[in-house]
Amino acid sequence: MSDNTNETTAAAEYDFHPMWESLGMDVPAHDMLLGAVGQMFGDVFLAQENRPASTDYLNQVVAGIHSGRIKEMLDKKASGEAKKIVGSFCLYVPEEIVIAAGGIPVGLCSGADWATDKVEEHLPRATCPLIKSFAGFKLGSVCPYIESSDLVIGENTCDGKKKAYEFMATQVNMYTVDIPNVHNAQTLELWKGEVRKLAERVEQETGQKITAESLKAAIKLANDKRRALQRLSATRAADPAPISGLDSLLTVQAAFMDDAERLTGAINAMADECEQRAADGVGVAPKGAKRILYTGTPMAVPNWKLFNIIEKAGGVVVGEEACTGSRYYKDLVDESGETVDEMLDAIAERYFGINCAIFTPNDGRIEDIVRMARELNADGIIDCSLQFCTLYEMESFTVEKAAEQAGIPFMHITTDYANEDAGQLTTRIEAFLEML
Amino acid sequence: MSDNTNETTAAAEYDFHPMWESLGMDVPAHDMLLGAVGQMFGDVFLAQENRPASTDYLNQVVAGIHSGRIKEMLDKKASGEAKKIVGSFCLYVPEEIVIAAGGIPVGLCSGADWATDKVEEHLPRATCPLIKSFAGFKLGSVCPYIESSDLVIGENTCDGKKKAYEFMATQVNMYTVDIPNVHNAQTLELWKGEVRKLAERVEQETGQKITAESLKAAIKLANDKRRALQRLSATRAADPAPISGLDSLLTVQAAFMDDAERLTGAINAMADECEQRAADGVGVAPKGAKRILYTGTPMAVPNWKLFNIIEKAGGVVVGEEACTGSRYYKDLVDESGETVDEMLDAIAERYFGINCAIFTPNDGRIEDIVRMARELNADGIIDCSLQFCTLYEMESFTVEKAAEQAGIPFMHITTDYANEDAGQLTTRIEAFLEML
Ligand code: SF4
Ligand code: SF4
Ligand code: SF4
Ligand code: SF4
Repeated sequence: MSDNTNETTAAAEYDFHPMWESLGMDVPAHDMLLGAVGQMFGDVFLAQENRPASTDYLNQVVAGIHSGRIKEMLDKKASGEAKKIVGSFCLYVPEEIVIAAGGIPVGLCSGADWATDKVEEHLPRATCPLIKSFAGFKLGSVCPYIESSDLVIGENTCDGKKKAYEFMATQVNMYTVDIPNVHNAQTLELWKGEVRKLAERVEQETGQKITAESLKAAIKLANDKRRALQRLSATRAADPAPISGLDSLLTVQAAFMDDAERLTGAINAMADECEQRAADGVGVAPKGAKRILYTGTPMAVPNWKLFNIIEKAGGVVVGEEACTGSRYYKDLVDESGETVDEMLDAIAERYFGINCAIFTPNDGRIEDIVRMARELNADGIIDCSLQFCTLYEMESFTVEKAAEQAGIPFMHITTDYANEDAGQLTTRIEAFLEML
Repeated sequence: MSDNTNETTAAAEYDFHPMWESLGMDVPAHDMLLGAVGQMFGDVFLAQENRPASTDYLNQVVAGIHSGRIKEMLDKKASGEAKKIVGSFCLYVPEEIVIAAGGIPVGLCSGADWATDKVEEHLPRATCPLIKSFAGFKLGSVCPYIESSDLVIGENTCDGKKKAYEFMATQVNMYTVDIPNVHNAQTLELWKGEVRKLAERVEQETGQKITAESLKAAIKLANDKRRALQRLSATRAADPAPISGLDSLLTVQAAFMDDAERLTGAINAMADECEQRAADGVGVAPKGAKRILYTGTPMAVPNWKLFNIIEKAGGVVVGEEACTGSRYYKDLVDESGETVDEMLDAIAERYFGINCAIFTPNDGRIEDIVRMARELNADGIIDCSLQFCTLYEMESFTVEKAAEQAGIPFMHITTDYANEDAGQLTTRIEAFLEML
């Protein structure tokens, strides 16, 4: 287990190139990628004024994201402390199961275009950038998380991922979980069965049985992380907002990659500082800055484009109804289960409540959006879909109607990972903020 | 029941405008639509040389498609011979159930752009034309099938339809069936449950219980139709092909709308004639014309664009691996069941075998394509997706690989309902035919 020191910072002089090479990565291309991400991180995050000091943790996470953290995971595997690294792309894959079976769960969603030419030999041009990105990171051999994953867990969610995994299965050791289309008693049973099948598959991979003890500990670990993120989120109701949307987004992006215990400690420290700031009226943006609730498709590292535009334009994002946001932490797994079976059921039930647009109807999401906008004192809602994401694009019409009914100004954006529309988006967002 | 005379032909002088008005249709707009379809039908179908004489049935179907056939259905309802009209959009909705409960099943998929401005107030611009079309036909009040449907059955298939039905449910009396993502023992059980729930819902709508007798008769009726279509399809292995792809496509399009018994009689007459033609070496295209297997997204009436281009370019389509093709008729429902339960299970099992791209993996479709190309002596495969159809667009990469492995020339096309790309498609298809 982690001792809450950040092992990545100590590694500043360490040369990670041999590690990347041993993972079969394209090292020169990866150097370019890391350089670009580092540059972007400076422009987007370090340029922010009046950040909470405790966000330094986030700087460390990003600094070590492809280096120290990977070494840490590989070292844990080498020492036997962890058995396997298990990657996934969706919030519907329960991390508790991976942890309880001795695995390290990592998120593989990717937020930058890469190796697009190669991707388009296998997937349509008109594919959502998130899917193209993870395929490109694999085909371009630049993602140390996917290269170090012993097992990759896909899930039958949107049309694009469902079919893209058929291709990914030719590239990595892959297992796919089936997610229903509707929430009802029958599909919940099916889903509970899928959770059990997944547990068996992960046990088989790690060679370690899930026990009542390990599962209970894993549930506690994940819930503690969620409780910390809930605390931090609650502080954002204050005006001025104590922490930026960019840093808040990064906490969840970090949660997909960093050690859970270390992350929880750091988020609690951020929550402490932000509670104090809220009490003292200290904010990252001036009091009265226009407050935005974000809702829509997930934003994987390093997709900071939209939040950066909103906040550089003088707005402040005060909440994220998204898988890289509240859906990640708002619900806990019931902790009262004692047997493995009871706990697997509790896990299945908790995950079944994630309001993804793959479900029809998806009223829970609509209610969450309105509730969050109110609780976090948002002045407006920005709903965004990644290009070619049919689900979120279609659901935006329902979101818009709900926002209208609730009397909350609403704006829909469709965008991708490229920067070509940045100017146009800035203009539209500035106009929206002015109108609020 | 029908007496195999075509009631639509007798109605030439009948004025259908009051009927359309009583259905709440936009009569002037509908007149325009009918005029355009009639014109197109002449240019595309009647311009064909050397058609089998028995295809006159198809001319009659199209002539009465929005008039005599609608009147016939409404008359049957008025007389009590039929209880309700039940519309659906997908091959996964079992017609046997509707028929056994005293309903008339009709297909509502639409193959022409209509009321696009209105559609884009509710659905994204980047939506597949088939979805936009049925929404536009409804919003523009020009489809007598949807206007006369007492119940509309949707199904959770692709992302686009799944979400578009949430909107359609605000426009019509709608019930949605849940279709799984994968084929396995658990999902088959779920699907059997869905088939039962559907049966109850339809019974509730029609007020007529499904009995062992009515269900057995309905299974026989639908199987007879499939057997007739199988017979006709088999004749297309001959060189020269006895019937065009256009007319063959239209047989299945007609099957979604016309009376089953009348259609079966007419298709058997076509099969008789085409068997004779095959024996005599008589064809619709010259012997040696390049033979194409079509595979891909469905083609709803009046989407004849691609087949028209292929056949006007001198090729001949000899088979359709599609929902408007072999998937509609290749498998029969087992006829040995005696109880309603046994028969509902047999229905569920038969429909579960429809190889739609919503399933992952979808190997059965890939095998069917290669098998059909061989059996029908195709020289090449043209695989086509409607624009923004992620599923078929993604699966085309797998189809291409399989065609390559089988040594069958392959071409992929992405298109929509507009005519803007007709010139470009013609050029590409001419080049493909020349290469064969
Ligand atoms: S948006 Fe849906 S498919 Fe995407 S990560 Fe979230 S739950 Fe999974
Ligand atoms: S953003 Fe939409 S299309 Fe892209 S992976 Fe997520 S659900 Fe699928
Ligand atoms: S292609 Fe799939 S979704 Fe479309 S009609 Fe066929 S089975 Fe239904
Ligand atoms: S063509 Fe594709 S996107 Fe359109 S309705 Fe059919 S499966 Fe859905």
